[in-house]
Order: sequence, then structure tokens, then C-alpha cells
Amino acid sequence: MLSQTRYRMLYLIGLGLGDAEDVTCKGLKIIKNAKRVYLEAYTSILTVGKEALEEFYGRSVILADRDMVEQHSDVILEDAEKEDIAFLVVGDPFGATTHSDLVLRAAERNIKYRVVHNASIMNAVGCCGLQLYNFGETVSIVFWTETWRPNSFYDKISQNRKHKLHTLCLLDIKVKEQTIENMMRGRPIYEPPRFMTVSQAASQLLEIVEDQKDSDKESLAYTAETICVGLARVGTDSQVIKVATLKQMTSLDLGRPLHSFIITGHLHPLEVDMLRQFTDDQSILA
Amino acid sequence: MLSQTRYRMLYLIGLGLGDAEDVTCKGLKIIKNAKRVYLEAYTSILTVGKEALEEFYGRSVILADRDMVEQHSDVILEDAEKEDIAFLVVGDPFGATTHSDLVLRAAERNIKYRVVHNASIMNAVGCCGLQLYNFGETVSIVFWTETWRPNSFYDKISQNRKHKLHTLCLLDIKVKEQTIENMMRGRPIYEPPRFMTVSQAASQLLEIVEDQKDSDKESLAYTAETICVGLARVGTDSQVIKVATLKQMTSLDLGRPLHSFIITGHLHPLEVDMLRQFTDDQSILA
Repeated sequence: MLSQTRYRMLYLIGLGLGDAEDVTCKGLKIIKNAKRVYLEAYTSILTVGKEALEEFYGRSVILADRDMVEQHSDVILEDAEKEDIAFLVVGDPFGATTHSDLVLRAAERNIKYRVVHNASIMNAVGCCGLQLYNFGETVSIVFWTETWRPNSFYDKISQNRKHKLHTLCLLDIKVKEQTIENMMRGRPIYEPPRFMTVSQAASQLLEIVEDQKDSDKESLAYTAETICVGLARVGTDSQVIKVATLKQMTSLDLGRPLHSFIITGHLHPLEVDMLRQFTDDQSILA
Repeated sequence: MLSQTRYRMLYLIGLGLGDAEDVTCKGLKIIKNAKRVYLEAYTSILTVGKEALEEFYGRSVILADRDMVEQHSDVILEDAEKEDIAFLVVGDPFGATTHSDLVLRAAERNIKYRVVHNASIMNAVGCCGLQLYNFGETVSIVFWTETWRPNSFYDKISQNRKHKLHTLCLLDIKVKEQTIENMMRGRPIYEPPRFMTVSQAASQLLEIVEDQKDSDKESLAYTAETICVGLARVGTDSQVIKVATLKQMTSLDLGRPLHSFIITGHLHPLEVDMLRQFTDDQSILA
């Protein structure tokens, strides 16, 4: 591929989901030859850190936080018309989080770009045995606070279930967040990263239908008994997939991040056979 | 990863979408060390053939046609409890086509399996700038014949559009098909492979709404003016993306396979900005 490259440009390179070796051979070749290599480190994480990537690539990597990518992209794009710049993204560059902004800013400056695709959670969830073409709209579930309990995903899950479709729920990630006090005082002190777990997501989802328990059960998007799939560290050696009811899911511990969650719709017999590999309670799939 | 492998097993390895170098470093290491390497060659294709893969891997690859995978999977699984067997799939092993059958047959024989994920068309379509979480159910469009014109995808597109969602249309692939005469006479003579183009898909889609032209326009799932995206050879050097109306799309030639098609739903301003890169007629995005 590189031999055919006539222009210097920006490369958006997907790293896949697991560790350093999940980069593609094409991606690795570009990384090794790029002038600068940035790692987008605020919307997802690998199971390994920057140091493991640097060791595998044999070169240094610059961490790009949200501020750099969204406010100071000129730094990233500098010299990209004369040199190859690599911008690394966990998963796929246009997967769960898109980097359209960076691409558009490159286009404004007449900098060419190319994408090296990789697996993202949006397609790798197929590993649980649910067919990707039976999924409806994907939703995001964010951490609730005492005063902020957004639940716009509920109506989308309801639509998907009405059409017998599965729903992939992307779970909240809080990286480099500040307390309100630190933010107001302008102190660059950040909270430890937080990753929503499958049991936290299940608890929030269950609360919504429990709040409506006087409603007709048929009118609910899902119930405590709806079959769900919890996934942790998809694509890694320590991957865990668990099939359980929503209620059961609230007390399961799937270990370290990242977690993802699926609320199933109609289950095809072949999907049921696949899900059986991952449940401790075969009766729920009877 | 291999150093941690205690069991011999079946590896399902995604090859991504472009050429030999789109395999991941992890996948390549497994391929080089596997006892046998099969290439699933009937649901999708790379831009390069088996020989290019063999040269890049430095080893021989066995073509697995539908008959072998679906009827004679024992051949593939032979000795997989004692040796590593690699089963290569264009895209992701659980992408547009799942290989649940093979996995379940392995499980029946107590053969462990592991998946090495990669990009599939299901997530790589994000490269056109439409956000993956704004897509509804994916549909498949098959070649019509004089007597067989299935259009079950129409209602799904209609549902997606009603909820402002985009629809990814996977286009038909006919590999190793027989004429009825050759099939009846038991002659192992196969037709040349056929791949549905973006313009063929657009023509079939347009015919459906033209057949209903007496209907209220508001009740149609889409019209001749609906913005569509045609994609060819996604993830390769020769990738082409074209944004046009459905009507315009019927006369566009995007070149060699594989092609994919998107019927847009509601367009977010950032999506419009991205799509502008790919249209010859900016007025349709006004």
C-alpha cells in the first residue's frame, strides 16, 4: 500500500479491541514510518497502556486527550501535507465514536486522509452469537446522578423490541473528568477514570421499568425477565460473555473494563444455540 | 497471546476488507503457526486472490466453499483438539455472515475456539461520515429474476426511515451458482461469480416505489430524490464513495466489486458536512 502512496497525509488507524497485536499489518507499517503518532485516549481503552504499544511499535506515541483533538487539532495536523501523521483510535476510527471533526479540519486544510479500519465493538459483539443484522439502533447509557437521570435510550429500546430487534448498549466512560469545584477553581485535578459495568447498566435499566410497575406489562419495553447479554473485554484473552435475565444481570461481576450490554429482541433458534454457551441458567433459554 | 494458549483450538480469523496486509498482527502469527489454514471463499471477497494471501503468509491456504463449510465441516475440524486450525473469513468472522454453525459443531466436539476480530462492512461503512449509531436494521438486497422479486427489505427500510435511521443494504453475491439445467443433470459446471452493483441495487429499489406511484408520496419509504450513499471496495486503495439521489445512483458506475449501499434517514449537520466530500451535486445536500 505505501509504495502506491503519492501524497503525504493523515492516517486514521484503528487498533481493534484487545492489545498491541490487534493492529493490522498495514496499520503497523504506517505507524513505523509516520513522522508523529498520536493515540486518542479518551473514548475507549485497550487492555494495555501506551508503553506496551510503544514497545510493540518500536517508537514513541503521543497521548491525545479530548482537549487536544477537539480544540487544538492544528497541532496534530501540523505538516501533514509534507509528512505522514498517524492518529490511532481504539476499535475503528469510525466506530462507536467517529472522528469526523478531525477529518473535516484536515479537508479544510487540503490534507488528504486515509482510514485503516479495524474491529470495533459495533461489529465484534457478533461473537456472542446474535446476528448483527438483527440489531436495531444502538444506544448509549450514561451514569445517572442524583439529579440527572437521562433515559432517552428507553424509547429506542422499545422501538427495537417492538420490531424484534436486539439493542446494543454502549456503556459510559468517564476519563479526565473534573469535580465541579475543581472546574470552577480552574484546578487541573482530574477524577480517576470510571467505566460503567454491566451490573450498573442493568440496575439503571431495571429501575426504569420498576418505576412504571403500575403500567400494563405488555406496554413495557422490557421486563426483569428479558434475556440480556453482558460482555467484557471483547476480543481479548480475558473476554467474558454472560447470558442472563436483566434481573440476574444486576448482580453479575464481569471484572475489569470495558463492558458492553445487549438487550435481546426476538431470538432465532440458531441464536439460542449460540447463547447457551454463555449462560449458567439454561432454563431462561427454554 | 500464543504464549498463553494452553489448548489447541479452532481460530476464526477476520481478514478485514482490503488486501493481504489487512490481517491483524495477532491473526498473522496464528496463521503462520497453524497446522492447516482454510479460507472461506463464498460469502465475500478481498481485492486479492488466494495466491497473494499465500505469498504474504508464507504458507499454503485451502479454499473452503459453502459445501465444505456447511456439509463437511468435520474435515475442517479434524485434529483441532490436538492442533491449531485457522479458518479465515473476509471481514469479521461474525460480521455480515456469521459462522455460528461451524462454532457450534466445534463446541459439540469439545473443540475450543477463539475469534480474532477485524473490520467488517457492518462497521467500516462509517467511513462515509454517517454515524453508526444512527443506523437501523441492516437489510440484504438480492438479484431479482423475471419470476422472483423479493422485496421484504422494503418494510424494514420504511421502519428505519420512519425513525430517522439510515439503512445499510448488503448487496447480493452469487458465487459457484449452477444453472437449473446443470444442477438437474448433476454437472459440476458453475456460472461466473456475480456481484450486485450500486446501480443495480438502486434500480431495483426505485422500481418498487415506481410500482406504487399512485400512493400518497408521504407513505412511501423513500423516493427517487432520497439521498443515498454508494460504496465500492471499502477499506482499499481504490475505495470509492458516492453520494447521490436514488435516481442519480441508478446510472453511476462505481467499478469493480464489492459494492454496498446506504439509504439515509435524517441527516445530522455533521453528517451532511462529511457527505459533501463525496458528491458531484452539492445541491442535493442543500
